[in-house]
Amino acid sequence: MSAVRVHNFTVSLDGFAAGPQQSFDDPLGIGGMRLHEWLFATGTFDSTDGASGLDDEYALQREIGVGATIMGRNMFGPIRGGWGAEQWAGWWGDDPPFHHPVFVLTHHAHAPIHMEGGTTFHFVTEGIQAALEQARAAAGDADVCIGGGVQTLLQYLRARLIDRVHLVIAPVLLGSGERLLGSDPAEPPLGYEVTEMVSSPTVTHVRLRRAT
Amino acid sequence: MSAVRVHNFTVSLDGFAAGPQQSFDDPLGIGGMRLHEWLFATGTFDSTDGASGLDDEYALQREIGVGATIMGRNMFGPIRGGWGAEQWAGWWGDDPPFHHPVFVLTHHAHAPIHMEGGTTFHFVTEGIQAALEQARAAAGDADVCIGGGVQTLLQYLRARLIDRVHLVIAPVLLGSGERLLGSDPAEPPLGYEVTEMVSSPTVTHVRLRRAT
Repeated sequence: MSAVRVHNFTVSLDGFAAGPQQSFDDPLGIGGMRLHEWLFATGTFDSTDGASGLDDEYALQREIGVGATIMGRNMFGPIRGGWGAEQWAGWWGDDPPFHHPVFVLTHHAHAPIHMEGGTTFHFVTEGIQAALEQARAAAGDADVCIGGGVQTLLQYLRARLIDRVHLVIAPVLLGSGERLLGSDPAEPPLGYEVTEMVSSPTVTHVRLRRAT
Repeated sequence: MSAVRVHNFTVSLDGFAAGPQQSFDDPLGIGGMRLHEWLFATGTFDSTDGASGLDDEYALQREIGVGATIMGRNMFGPIRGGWGAEQWAGWWGDDPPFHHPVFVLTHHAHAPIHMEGGTTFHFVTEGIQAALEQARAAAGDADVCIGGGVQTLLQYLRARLIDRVHLVIAPVLLGSGERLLGSDPAEPPLGYEVTEMVSSPTVTHVRLRRAT
């Protein structure tokens, strides 16, 4: 069976994947955008001015062999509750960088949105297992990427449905925000082990694998 | 004025400086000892079998130019409340690795304990400021090292009395335990910035500096 992977998921040195006070103007919370500067500087993200090197090698893995993406509704957009009249189609413009089917977890049904470049947003109201089944069917032999955000990743991690995680530690202290690892001290360990940890001049890359 | 430094302070990938359920048999909590394996493998710690290299270069900094150490009472030993009849003299045997005055923060007065090799344990009941004044006086022109544990470091960090921190991230997931950074989401940022982040084959070394 194809793998379920997470890539380029960046946390601060103090462990936060988003800063405090997330809003439409600050979708990643105060200071949260600083987490992703390493990615914006890669050739994978910016084919004109981006650089090659270790960070780019990691960033590119997100694109290789991935046939479908799953994301939470809060990553898709800032709208909460019902969808309303506005036709929101994601943060990524007319040609989103996915180029494959994207499954958005939501409690509110919505017709698929077909974008340029091969990206279609599908909306799944039946939960994370159903979304994974649909994503796997769409991906065929390719892998499924869990895109984010934090709460979506946590749901899949707790269900032990993710095989591998590429985590990035940015040299930034946010002080508070939304935590991926160790967010609930009462929770048993998630059952993952560190298989790699290596620094570029900019960030530290970590690979986790589900323990058998 | 001499600097106040922290060295070799190791946290797990999920941010815990000690594991859960600390006890006499498990002074660092369940799994906590795994954090320090990188240090045990250095020539600085183990002059017979330890290795040189990047980890050793960082580990050695703790010994260079440090004239006094401050630690919390829980780092000194497992006894809580009054000192009792037993003569506890630390975890480190007859010749502790400090070779200079060590100031132990406690609510319970205790006569100094003179050890072999130049280490004397002094017990300070007047709080962190008094301990720092005494440590500075003892250190002369040399620096003061805040040894640990987590709560002691947090007190000094919150008072902005620490100049530089060498933090180590071990490729270990503890799941829960005692957190150094981001332990209180309601707290304002501590006011430190990352000046260096570099990986050895074993761990990632991070340097923090108090922001001006």
